[in-house]
Amino acid sequence: MARDTRERIITAAATLFRRQGYTGTGLQQIATESQARVGSIYHFFAGGKDALTVEVIRSGGAAYGAMVGALLANGPDDPVEALGAMFEQAAVDLAATDYADACPIATIALEVASTNEPLRIATAGAFEGWLEGLTTFCHQITDDPTGARDLAVMVLTALEGAFILTRAARDPEALRAAGRSVVQLATAVRARSVDANGAS
Amino acid sequence: MARDTRERIITAAATLFRRQGYTGTGLQQIATESQARVGSIYHFFAGGKDALTVEVIRSGGAAYGAMVGALLANGPDDPVEALGAMFEQAAVDLAATDYADACPIATIALEVASTNEPLRIATAGAFEGWLEGLTTFCHQITDDPTGARDLAVMVLTALEGAFILTRAARDPEALRAAGRSVVQLATAVRARSVDANGAS
Repeated sequence: MARDTRERIITAAATLFRRQGYTGTGLQQIATESQARVGSIYHFFAGGKDALTVEVIRSGGAAYGAMVGALLANGPDDPVEALGAMFEQAAVDLAATDYADACPIATIALEVASTNEPLRIATAGAFEGWLEGLTTFCHQITDDPTGARDLAVMVLTALEGAFILTRAARDPEALRAAGRSVVQLATAVRARSVDANGAS
Repeated sequence: MARDTRERIITAAATLFRRQGYTGTGLQQIATESQARVGSIYHFFAGGKDALTVEVIRSGGAAYGAMVGALLANGPDDPVEALGAMFEQAAVDLAATDYADACPIATIALEVASTNEPLRIATAGAFEGWLEGLTTFCHQITDDPTGARDLAVMVLTALEGAFILTRAARDPEALRAAGRSVVQLATAVRARSVDANGAS
């Protein structure tokens, strides 16, 4: 029961942060949305809003990374096609939530980057976790460690940037265009990797 | 003199929004930073904070688009190299501002996408203006209209996403990696365009 309340608080905070940002979300609204009392939030998160936010970033980052990993693992067998399918799924999902639920971390990250060092570090940790997962995946496309990491950075930055444009325009075309370009880039990266291996 | 005050208000608001977001910035802080009175803000922007923010997005978007356009026009003659140089310059500039001053629109865009329709529309207009400028530039790389637009979307989404990662990590490597990938993608796009023209 206690665990239920704690989870409800985290889920409500995550949803509110994603839709309206960290700064614009107060503890009272989080309490109302999670059917808890503000006192309960302090019971579970003695440090208040920032302690709760660190947990939202940590657990939300882990859950999002796992979701993306599952999407790629269960996508098309061809890893390049799987990357394209991931962007298409992101376009469908974002439209289905009325362009509200995109990345659980990005809005907070931009809000706190220059103003709240503990939260900045938490967002950096979430992004690095995702990059490590994507880099492992991209090793199926190229043997070159720098090439795999660079491709992972491009996948994540294109996804994050396309989330911004898609939400602003209320139009998933930016996610679809980014997906097409990621597929084209990954195809070129794979061709170069095959050439390099063939030449060795 | 009146124009000076108005400009100071817009500049101060733009800087504060960029560093700490729209929601976290109050009129009092904008007044203090611009050495104006809150009453002066209402004198120039009768609609208050939102009217001022629309002007920050409009003028900031136009200025940023012009800056990027000049950077590309004054960069290396080769348009693909010019794109790479733009990411390198962004990495240098962001580190030089202690990872504070990246895109003037992105933080506001994510904060307001689901909560403030007039501001959402203003951010969408700024992004579309940049995309049109970048698409025109990318026509130097490919004759294909869809290819040029897709490449422009990839440049902008990669830049926006890399700004998030770079600010979060306080490390310009994400911008540099995104720049390398954009150069690789643009090279592939150009090669395909040359092939298509050669085949026709």
